[in-house]
Amino acid sequence: MSTERHTTHFQDELEQLKARLLEMGGLAEDRTRSAVRALVDRDHALVEKVLVSDAAINQLHIEIDDRCFKLLALHQPMAVDLRAIVAAVKINTDLERVGDLAINIAEAVARYLQHPPVKELIDIPRMAQIAQDMLRDALDAFVRRDLVLAQQVLDRDDELDMLKTVVFRELLDHMLRDQSAVEPALDLLLISRHLERIGDHATNVAEDVIFMVSAKDVRHHQEENK
Amino acid sequence: MSTERHTTHFQDELEQLKARLLEMGGLAEDRTRSAVRALVDRDHALVEKVLVSDAAINQLHIEIDDRCFKLLALHQPMAVDLRAIVAAVKINTDLERVGDLAINIAEAVARYLQHPPVKELIDIPRMAQIAQDMLRDALDAFVRRDLVLAQQVLDRDDELDMLKTVVFRELLDHMLRDQSAVEPALDLLLISRHLERIGDHATNVAEDVIFMVSAKDVRHHQEENK
Repeated sequence: MSTERHTTHFQDELEQLKARLLEMGGLAEDRTRSAVRALVDRDHALVEKVLVSDAAINQLHIEIDDRCFKLLALHQPMAVDLRAIVAAVKINTDLERVGDLAINIAEAVARYLQHPPVKELIDIPRMAQIAQDMLRDALDAFVRRDLVLAQQVLDRDDELDMLKTVVFRELLDHMLRDQSAVEPALDLLLISRHLERIGDHATNVAEDVIFMVSAKDVRHHQEENK
Repeated sequence: MSTERHTTHFQDELEQLKARLLEMGGLAEDRTRSAVRALVDRDHALVEKVLVSDAAINQLHIEIDDRCFKLLALHQPMAVDLRAIVAAVKINTDLERVGDLAINIAEAVARYLQHPPVKELIDIPRMAQIAQDMLRDALDAFVRRDLVLAQQVLDRDDELDMLKTVVFRELLDHMLRDQSAVEPALDLLLISRHLERIGDHATNVAEDVIFMVSAKDVRHHQEENK
């Protein structure tokens, strides 16, 4: 196989890897959205749907890991390509966790729906929207090697943290005023923490993108050691 | 450089990488232990110490990532060695998160200590002990490529989950009986969740060890594609 054909083949494989990561990100985002919509609409059927929806993400997780190892072993990539594949391994892990967190949200929603509503839900859907946007932007930044977009994801994490604090104070207030609100408010609190963690995973992805694009070239070290 | 010397050099580097991961694991474990001891002993000074102790772990995190990239780029390892280094990248991320969680615990302890004690603390120190043991065993399993020990770590996670549920019910009970307990009990609840997540990270490490030791040899794929 000529070097040129080898390189083209590698770039094709890398594109396919990116496409799979986007697909997985789409699934993780979709599940998060469904779990929070089930909360807002008090939709028991949708909760159940989210609770049994992890097969597709788990399968993609295995497939992507496998693709990364093959790319590392067959093509022995250097510099930004090497960093892209190691980033893909990490991002794959982050996306799987987001899928798990969507299930954790659905579990809390299932418990929450056994009680009357504690309050009108405004900040939690907002947190969900921010977390989803962060995740999508972080993956777009990965695919396009876009440092500016990656930095924007990091900036939005503060907004999510702030909302988490607002939600916490509000729920604590409900719990202190009304004992019957303690149990359902705890579930809303857990949901807001899960959403914050989805934002943390998006932040991890954005940090990986920044390292991938801007790190010193590891080939310099090789040349020094030759 | 002869292949033999190259191989020896690689194995030396791999040993150093493992030693660094153990060092980082020791720091993460130590911080977790200190944060929970500060809770039990109501030791404000120790809380403060944990809160400002992240520099060493963060520095190791960068150094280990750098070592992994150099090993991948310079030695282009295959099969179990390749999987070991990719596992090291993932484990490095998990250990950094454990360090962050120890800080989160310390933050909750700082708030908790502003109130009178809610209850005698028995299950939370037990959770901390299990999480620390899981982490140490998972890292030992990585260094020794020990599948049996890795499997034991996975089994212990159920114990941690069970304790988390016991703690949750007990704290909920306190919150329902005594309004003044709501705020401090919430912090204990968060601490138990952080400890559960430390157990999750140990579980991740154990899963990486199992994949590293038992996965199909990626070189088979290379031979098929030649």
